[in-house]
Amino acid sequence: MTQFPDPSALSKSDLETGPIFAPRFDANGLVTAVTVEAGTNQVLMVAHMNADAITETLRSGHATYWSRSRGKLWKKGETSGELQELVELRTDCDQDALLVVVRQTGHGAACHTGRKTCFYRRVEMTGVDVKLSDTGEAQLFDPKAVYRR
Amino acid sequence: MTQFPDPSALSKSDLETGPIFAPRFDANGLVTAVTVEAGTNQVLMVAHMNADAITETLRSGHATYWSRSRGKLWKKGETSGELQELVELRTDCDQDALLVVVRQTGHGAACHTGRKTCFYRRVEMTGVDVKLSDTGEAQLFDPKAVYRR
Repeated sequence: MTQFPDPSALSKSDLETGPIFAPRFDANGLVTAVTVEAGTNQVLMVAHMNADAITETLRSGHATYWSRSRGKLWKKGETSGELQELVELRTDCDQDALLVVVRQTGHGAACHTGRKTCFYRRVEMTGVDVKLSDTGEAQLFDPKAVYRR
Repeated sequence: MTQFPDPSALSKSDLETGPIFAPRFDANGLVTAVTVEAGTNQVLMVAHMNADAITETLRSGHATYWSRSRGKLWKKGETSGELQELVELRTDCDQDALLVVVRQTGHGAACHTGRKTCFYRRVEMTGVDVKLSDTGEAQLFDPKAVYRR
């Protein structure tokens, strides 16, 4: 189990501007990870990492998350083949969120629905009604074929 | 208090591909909001929204979050002047994260440290050591001057 320094032991200044990586995990031991495509910056997905997922991502060079639904480490693409090659990892000012810059391999689809990005629907308000409209993001693989068990 | 449909009442297919906006709030009533700059897609910050923050963002056209530290709605820039004009709001496949596309006004700094983005430090691994290195993101305002009370 990876150990990182305790963020509560750092001053605000050290936490925000220093060289010490001390992720501020939540009560479940997780930080938010936002994954973007290298080059375009397009946001592909939002997931979570625990300490081991962070270390494994840095060590292996492949984005690895913590699957909350399955309760285990999740090397992205291990089932679908849609691996994510790590280009750069960044932390935010107060170290409770990570930016994961990747090259998306396989069909180029980060989303389990087969789309490049998970963000394929727009939230629109008309009067007091709020609804979603599809942006027409293409399906790059058929999830039924890829995830059959 | 804004009411959205109960996501647990939707089928997986309706949740993931339908027109019904039913945000999957966590136990604290929050979803993750990733804010990016319109045009460049650069990730500026990660924050949280509750139901009222979502509605207020759509209604007012200015990104409004839920401040966990202050326990209240937080119109981004209300203190610093760094307002965020909403260009587009998107949801992800399982509706527990939002993408907030904005024009960053003021000095162009989304981060409270005065930088454009909160993600100004790279996480680097050398052997088993992990440390942060500053990417040299410029400070566009002096937080001491802007946030003096």
